[in-house]
Amino acid sequence: MRIFVDMDEVIADTYQEHINIYNKEFNANFTKVEAENKCSDFWKCVPPEHQQNVKDHARQVGFFRNLAVIPHSQEVLKELYHKHEVYIASAAMQFPNSLKEKSDWLDEHFPFIKWQHRILCGDKHMLKGDVLIDDRAYNLERFEGRAILFTSPHNIGEERFERVSSWLQIAEMLV
Amino acid sequence: MRIFVDMDEVIADTYQEHINIYNKEFNANFTKVEAENKCSDFWKCVPPEHQQNVKDHARQVGFFRNLAVIPHSQEVLKELYHKHEVYIASAAMQFPNSLKEKSDWLDEHFPFIKWQHRILCGDKHMLKGDVLIDDRAYNLERFEGRAILFTSPHNIGEERFERVSSWLQIAEMLV
Repeated sequence: MRIFVDMDEVIADTYQEHINIYNKEFNANFTKVEAENKCSDFWKCVPPEHQQNVKDHARQVGFFRNLAVIPHSQEVLKELYHKHEVYIASAAMQFPNSLKEKSDWLDEHFPFIKWQHRILCGDKHMLKGDVLIDDRAYNLERFEGRAILFTSPHNIGEERFERVSSWLQIAEMLV
Repeated sequence: MRIFVDMDEVIADTYQEHINIYNKEFNANFTKVEAENKCSDFWKCVPPEHQQNVKDHARQVGFFRNLAVIPHSQEVLKELYHKHEVYIASAAMQFPNSLKEKSDWLDEHFPFIKWQHRILCGDKHMLKGDVLIDDRAYNLERFEGRAILFTSPHNIGEERFERVSSWLQIAEMLV
């Protein structure tokens, strides 16, 4: 079985990093739970005059290098990797500074995923495989195989896909 | 029609860059024509004690940023891009320093190729499409669609694939 796994919001906690940077910059105290209830993408949580600022976080040098790991993704992905043909597939090409940072981040937190099994791309619908685990509906919509939506604050209302909310659930389904 | 196009040795002249760096470093005067006749991969052209040095070129900062453009690739690829669904697909993940350099190089020489249509990967057999243009037999071997070998000094003896030796030939076949 060939499985594609997205990075941001699936194994790397970009959402929390947006909150951390915003809180520091504007001396605010947002939490993820509050953001989940109040808005979808985090930039929608903040005053209009700060929204572009949040959108620009992803262009900052270092943003993608210091992300926290989503709980249990390391051990579950390691098991999957040894049982199936697993690829990381991240739509990173929009942010050229992110490319090496993502590679370095994977080296640190997922060293068992060889370079042959890492894909930094834009579109994902040209990927041929059995499963795609992603937080973005627009990636899942055009994927031919089993499309699994990983819960993130920005996709709470999405009902078209099989949904998982943790890596422990993925372990039950796929390992 | 969905077409994947490799970078090194297809639109970017890595082979010539290896020769340039080697000639400068060792005060030599290799030419591409000489290399074509004498050896396949360029590292096989040089004395055994210099071979690792040539293999390490690709890890040097800047190596992938300054490559010459393969003749006619810009105008032909532009025509293809507007008629078909074209993606750049480069096995770049082995060299993390190359990632941003490749993105910047594409911005400079192929600005019409949007980030959504750029793929930096390892394996290529998970790409689903109609055509792959590549200089490496191991990428073409496992591709499901039409596999087109772009001539490079290192693949002269390869006879398993449809071969092209210039972008003008590709224009005749695909535009």
